[in-house]
Amino acid sequence: MAIKVIEINKSVYADSIKLADETRQRLKEQGTCLLNLMASPGAGKTTLLLKTIENLSSYCIGVMEADIEASVDAEKLQAAGVQSIQVHTGGECAMNASMTKQALDEFDTSGLDLVFLENVGNLVCPAEEDVGAHKKVALLSVPEGDDKPLKYPLMFQVVDAVVITKTDARAFFNFDDEAVCERIHQLNPSAEIFFVSAKTGEGLESWCDWVRRNLFV
Amino acid sequence: MAIKVIEINKSVYADSIKLADETRQRLKEQGTCLLNLMASPGAGKTTLLLKTIENLSSYCIGVMEADIEASVDAEKLQAAGVQSIQVHTGGECAMNASMTKQALDEFDTSGLDLVFLENVGNLVCPAEEDVGAHKKVALLSVPEGDDKPLKYPLMFQVVDAVVITKTDARAFFNFDDEAVCERIHQLNPSAEIFFVSAKTGEGLESWCDWVRRNLFV
Repeated sequence: MAIKVIEINKSVYADSIKLADETRQRLKEQGTCLLNLMASPGAGKTTLLLKTIENLSSYCIGVMEADIEASVDAEKLQAAGVQSIQVHTGGECAMNASMTKQALDEFDTSGLDLVFLENVGNLVCPAEEDVGAHKKVALLSVPEGDDKPLKYPLMFQVVDAVVITKTDARAFFNFDDEAVCERIHQLNPSAEIFFVSAKTGEGLESWCDWVRRNLFV
Repeated sequence: MAIKVIEINKSVYADSIKLADETRQRLKEQGTCLLNLMASPGAGKTTLLLKTIENLSSYCIGVMEADIEASVDAEKLQAAGVQSIQVHTGGECAMNASMTKQALDEFDTSGLDLVFLENVGNLVCPAEEDVGAHKKVALLSVPEGDDKPLKYPLMFQVVDAVVITKTDARAFFNFDDEAVCERIHQLNPSAEIFFVSAKTGEGLESWCDWVRRNLFV
């Protein structure tokens, strides 16, 4: 089956806050939770998604892959049998409420319990946009370093949870678990933090439990 | 010594192309090469800079550290005795020509052979800006994956060179050197590509040779 690719119209809706709220409300009414997943390029978003969806196999889950170009992630998901569409942002560095609405209009979410938006790989711009998600999650991979909350504070302030990924590489990269938690909680005391390795399965269960608790079903 | 921190005025200059050209011309006349270093968060820009400056110790080199917030990178450079300033972009996801001019106005570059601009960690926005540099370099770290040129093509199109960093982690992350070169050269046939590990020293010599060849001295 060919990958469905949406080329986004960049025109911004007049009232993006209203639009985001409408999206949130409409999805909630139909019982679909929208989870906005944000991170740097290569932090492991797609790999985490694949493992998460496998773990939550009793739920109907779809993925909207947002990228500047290419469809490599949507191809990976489709190969794993995940219902997904590819959104091309036309150069934009993040999804916004209008772009998300356009994508949702093309994606049949009516039977879905959960939709992941895999945002453009970027630790800056996506933090500034309310796309209409019910929950926001940032991934930070161990190779990126434990100092990133200091340098990209907004991302860690706006999210409900942070997943530290590639934890199997912890020793290799001299990553300080305690320091990263302290830095995140200084910015965002209520942020839940999960340490996950998609490779070894470490922490996957707690992360999936958190996702499950946030569904409307 | 306290770190010099420049809080950037976001007002954009009317003619940014003209401003970038003026910066380029002015620096060239005084014999200073400006090199714009761009990459995702945590790709290893600061670590590569420290090793590069150590290797090129016969030259006078300065660094402008651009970050959304915090001064951790400038502190690392200053601790190593490198002449540096910290630029805070006020939330902006990349440096532009006007911001670079403001930073240069505060940084005494008159005796410098080379100034590195360590741009905000971001694989999207910095690619769109001509800051007035003589050369543009993208770093891509092995843990990010060899598919990134497919997903962030503009960055790999606009640069003169690409440094693949953290190559000591190559086996751990199943990174395909040949595939990444092919993807980069498809976008940018003349891009020079270097494989460097700041940890083991692999490839550092060739990368530093390239930097040396691009100086005006």
